[in-house]
Order: sequence, then structure tokens, then C-alpha cells
Amino acid sequence: MKPATKIRFEALSDGVFAIAVTLLALELRVPNLQSPTFSFRGLIPLIPSLLTFVLSFVTIAIFWVNHHQLTQRLSTITRRRILWLNMLFLLFLILIPFVTQTMSLNAPSAPAVSIYALVLFGASASFSFLRYWIHHQAHSTARVSFRSLIGPSVYFLAILAPIMSIPLAYVLLTIPPLFYFLPKSSM
Amino acid sequence: MKPATKIRFEALSDGVFAIAVTLLALELRVPNLQSPTFSFRGLIPLIPSLLTFVLSFVTIAIFWVNHHQLTQRLSTITRRRILWLNMLFLLFLILIPFVTQTMSLNAPSAPAVSIYALVLFGASASFSFLRYWIHHQAHSTARVSFRSLIGPSVYFLAILAPIMSIPLAYVLLTIPPLFYFLPKSSM
Amino acid sequence: MKPATKIRFEALSDGVFAIAVTLLALELRVPNLQSPTFSFRGLIPLIPSLLTFVLSFVTIAIFWVNHHQLTQRLSTITRRRILWLNMLFLLFLILIPFVTQTMSLNAPSAPAVSIYALVLFGASASFSFLRYWIHHQAHSTARVSFRSLIGPSVYFLAILAPIMSIPLAYVLLTIPPLFYFLPKSSM
Amino acid sequence: MKPATKIRFEALSDGVFAIAVTLLALELRVPNLQSPTFSFRGLIPLIPSLLTFVLSFVTIAIFWVNHHQLTQRLSTITRRRILWLNMLFLLFLILIPFVTQTMSLNAPSAPAVSIYALVLFGASASFSFLRYWIHHQAHSTARVSFRSLIGPSVYFLAILAPIMSIPLAYVLLTIPPLFYFLPKSSM
Repeated sequence: MKPATKIRFEALSDGVFAIAVTLLALELRVPNLQSPTFSFRGLIPLIPSLLTFVLSFVTIAIFWVNHHQLTQRLSTITRRRILWLNMLFLLFLILIPFVTQTMSLNAPSAPAVSIYALVLFGASASFSFLRYWIHHQAHSTARVSFRSLIGPSVYFLAILAPIMSIPLAYVLLTIPPLFYFLPKSSM
Repeated sequence: MKPATKIRFEALSDGVFAIAVTLLALELRVPNLQSPTFSFRGLIPLIPSLLTFVLSFVTIAIFWVNHHQLTQRLSTITRRRILWLNMLFLLFLILIPFVTQTMSLNAPSAPAVSIYALVLFGASASFSFLRYWIHHQAHSTARVSFRSLIGPSVYFLAILAPIMSIPLAYVLLTIPPLFYFLPKSSM
Repeated sequence: MKPATKIRFEALSDGVFAIAVTLLALELRVPNLQSPTFSFRGLIPLIPSLLTFVLSFVTIAIFWVNHHQLTQRLSTITRRRILWLNMLFLLFLILIPFVTQTMSLNAPSAPAVSIYALVLFGASASFSFLRYWIHHQAHSTARVSFRSLIGPSVYFLAILAPIMSIPLAYVLLTIPPLFYFLPKSSM
Repeated sequence: MKPATKIRFEALSDGVFAIAVTLLALELRVPNLQSPTFSFRGLIPLIPSLLTFVLSFVTIAIFWVNHHQLTQRLSTITRRRILWLNMLFLLFLILIPFVTQTMSLNAPSAPAVSIYALVLFGASASFSFLRYWIHHQAHSTARVSFRSLIGPSVYFLAILAPIMSIPLAYVLLTIPPLFYFLPKSSM
């Protein structure tokens, strides 16, 4: 394989990130706000969608920041597996607007939450492998940290959690983003 | 935090700007123009949508010009808060097509105009904070000007205005874009 | 005004071009092809949409090639009017998928063809002004050529043509793209 | 023709690739998962769509990798035919989400599979011509390899195959992507 240039690798990824994040908002349903009095009641059914929207937005934003930090280690891409792990990550990334809408429109639904968690597990796990091989190519001495295993582990639990309790699954889904904002994060 | 490169910061932002602006047009409803005579009557119900479309387009375009002027001051992004204020700004930016459609399809509706103003207030306020911290990082002596407070202030009034009068709120929404085109603007 | 960097000016424009062109295909309606025998009859109602799709695609592609040739003359953008003429051009560009669908779904409809021609006239005329001022900034001795006036003129006629004859209007709409491919074009 | 800069040629192409790939997921229909028990039955009707989604994603990803490898040979684009062969390739590329959805929603349907194969044949054949002329401009001694003819040939057979057997056509459609992953590929 000829080494791939970083610029197009990043351009494709940034394009997909930008579109995925914008589609999240496209999938919000226009509420019915036609009422004779000044009332926001028409927004109430939209609240679960808006919360899910913010959760997915923040999750994708964190993936972007980490992706950006990671590719700074690269000058060129010399291993085909890095290219294809990135493609696998993008495959899960573009499914996020779809599972966000599935979770919003079916709420509360245990299998819908499971599928949401499954896609985030896929994104998170493929990202961890991507990180491993980029560190490997860069001969980085940084080991795969404990922190990098939190995302895949918590999302894996969130796949199974809805069998017992949907609220528990929601709580699990907010842990990886919150953890990221704790001090001394690996960002 | 390792310094973030400006190129991907701008690439993500430009992608989101380009998609947000294009989605504005996607949300226009195809009019029924099938009539035996040459008549544009089928376009009349589209007029409020088209005016709102132009208003949102110009508003996003001005945000883009200002964003572009602002990032020219940066070489790299060394503060995490700049990254996340930009994300917050993008969060509000991608909601603009959604609230544009909400305002168009419900017109005239006081709460729909309030929500439109609320999202523009969010975009405008997060942009002002972004500007403050970028000037701060660049050790710019430029103070946050009086002009930069016009946007958030007027949009804040426009959130409340529909309680009294919807036309007043529409007038307020056109002030920040018009102000921008006055001579000696801070562009 | 501080000079704007060409890179983001082009990035925004290319983003809008890429999305506008892709939305053309998004607006094609999925045909019903479920039949017991091997038959493409379900595609027949799609033929006008497909022809309009190809026409709009080629028209946007030619705009892109010309836009690209034009911005090569620039190093930085020092005049605010260039920035805003480009925005005006992009405003019309993003309306092309919308008027394409309007023309397809209402066909045959005289006012729908007029509106399609109107948006292309707007894109074409704003592009001519953009070209004029970019040549002006670049101190280019190249005058605005006769060729550059063909687009706006023919599209202007196509706005009026449907009053007399819809097929005539369709013929007019194909002239600017065909003209472009003639030898010794100004490309 | 003035030579075109590679950067915008690639920016437009990458934008279209990113959007085409993301639209694949947009066209998945949100399943009904509201059931009192924990059950994934609502996902069963989605399985053909998901398989087609993965097939189209991998096919587009391979096109991107090849496109990327190819443009590395270019410094500037001096032949108009390269520009327009790329446009022709992009025309077929943006039709992929549309034919993916057509095939999914009509499945099983012989003509829908034929149309899917037809669009991939178009993309594949225009890409082969593009490759030929880029090698030609770069004075590359590399002949058009046997491998580069596999895509167009197999997709051509897949256009005709549904007349006899739909499953045979599906098998043919998976051959070009699988072949790509064999060792000693021309990647």
C-alpha cells in the first residue's frame, strides 16, 4: 500500500462528522405550536427528543475532539488497517442520527435503547482499536490507558441494562460523556 | 490539552455552516403549481417560508463572516474552552434550520417566534463568549465592543416580544443583520 | 475589512456545492418496482425527474468549474462585496434542488418552469457580478466577455418563455450548459 | 484550459463522498419498537435494509480509497476530460443512496436490483476511464491492469443476472468489494 495522505483522510472524516451532527437536528419533528394563547405546551412532547439530541451531539463532539487529537500523531497513514478501522468507526458514526431518532420516537422502549447503546459501543470499540494502531504506527510509548476502556465497557453494559431497567440504561449512556469532562482527562 | 490544529477546527465548522445553510432550502415545501392557466398563485402560501428562509440565510452568512474573521486571530487552539464554546455555538447553529421551519409552518405563532429568537440568542451569546476567549488567547487589546453586545441583547428582547406583539418580534429579528451592514461595522 | 483568507471562502463554497449536488439525488422519489415480471415500467414516471436531475447536475457542475477557475485569480479577498456576491450566488445555488423538485413534481407546469429559470437567472447573474469584481480586484485586463452574458440572458428569456410554450422554455434551459461545451469556451 | 488546482478538485469529491455515505443511513426507516416485552422483532423487517446499507457503505468506501490513491498521482489537473470524468463518476456516486433505498424498499424485485447494478456499473466504468486518463497525464507506465476491469465487468453481469435469478445478482454485487480485500490488491 502506498501511504495515504492525512489531509484527505481527515477531510472525509470531518465531512462525515459535520453531516452526522447536523442530521441530528434535521430529524427533530416540527412541533405544532398553533394556539390562540401564548403557550409552549406544544413543546412538551419534544422534550425527550431534545434531551436525546443534546446527548448525541455531545457524544459526537467528544468523538471528534478525540479523533482530532489522535490524528495529530500521524503524518501519513501507512497501514491499511488504520484506514479501515476509521471506515468502521465512520460506519457506526453515521448510524448515530438513525438510532437517536429510533430511541426518541419509540420512547420509552427497551430494545430502542439497546440499539442506541449497541451503535455507540461499536463506535467506541472501533475507535479504541483505531487508537491502538495509530499509537502503534507512531511508536508511541503511551499504553492504551484504563480511561480508553471506559467507553466500550459502559456502552456494553448499556446494551444489556434495558432488560432490567430503562432509566438505568439512560444513566449509563450519560457516563462516558460526563467522565470525559472530569479533570485530568486524557484529552 | 495538546494544542488543536486550526485546520480541522475550521473544517468542522465550515462543514456545519455549509450543511446548515443548505438544509434551510431543503425544508421549503414543494408548492402545488399545477394549474391550467399561467398563475403563480400556488406560490403565495410559500411567501412567509421564503422570507424566513432569506432571514435565516443572511443571519447564518453573517455568523460565518464573523467566525471567519475571528479564527484568523488564532494560530492554534490551546484552550479547551475555545473548542467547547465553538461546539456550543455549532449546537445552536444546527438548530436554526429546525426553528426556521417551526416558525414557517406555524406562522403566525407567538411561541414559535420565541423559540426562533431563543436559538438565535443562544448562537449569538455563545459566539460572544467565543470571541472574548479568542481575543484573550491572542492577547488582543481589543475590548469586547459595544457592537458585539447588540446581537445577544436584541435576540433576548425578541424572545419576550411575542407575548405583546408578533410583528414587533419580527422587526427585532431583522435588526442584528441590518445593523451589521451599516458602515463602520466591526467586520 | 480585514482581508479574508481564500481557504475558508473556498471551503464554504465547496461544501455548499457538494451538498446541493447530492441533495438533487435525495429528492428523487423511490419508484414502485414490485411486479411479478421483470419490468421497468415502474421507472417510466421517473423519466422527467431523471432528465431534470441530469440537467441540474450538469448546470451546477459547470458553475463549480467556473467558480474554481475564477477563485484561482484571488490570493486574498479584500473587498466585502466579493464576499457578499458569493453569498448571494450560494443563496441561489442552494435553491436549485428545491426548484428542480418543484419542476419535476408539477410537470408539465408553466409557472414551475418559470421559477426554475428565475433561480438559475439569479445564480447566473450574481455569478457574472462576482466575476466582474474578482477581475477588478485582480486588475485583470480581461473584459467581461460576450460569453459571460449568455447565461443570464438565456435564463431571463426562459423565465418568460413558459407563457408561450413550455417545450421552448426547456430548450432554452439546455442552451447555457451546451454552449459551455462548445470549443474555444472561456473555461 | 488553465490547470485546475488539486485541492478544490479533492474538496468537492470528498464532500460528495462524505454526504453520499451519510445519506445511506438517513434513508433507513425508523422501526417500530414499541412493545411491552423486551423484543427485537421490530428490527426483522429492517434486516434487508441494513445488509444493503453495509454493502453500499463498503462499496463507496472502496471507491474513496481508490480515488484517493489515484489523485495522489496528480499535482494539477491539466486536462478537461479528467475534470469531467470525475463529474460523471460523482453523478453515479450520488445516485447510490437512491438506488440503495430503491432496492431495499422493493425487495425482492428484479428490476430494482438491475438498476442498483446499473448505477454501480456507471460509477465503476467512469472510474476506470478516470484512472486511464490520470495515468496518461502522469505518464505512468502502469497499464490498466486486469484487476481494474473486474468491477465494470461484474457489475455489467449483475445488470442482466436478475432476469434469471435475484440471489445470483446479489452474489455478483458482493464480488467486487470482496475481491478488493484479497491480498496483492492494486490498492
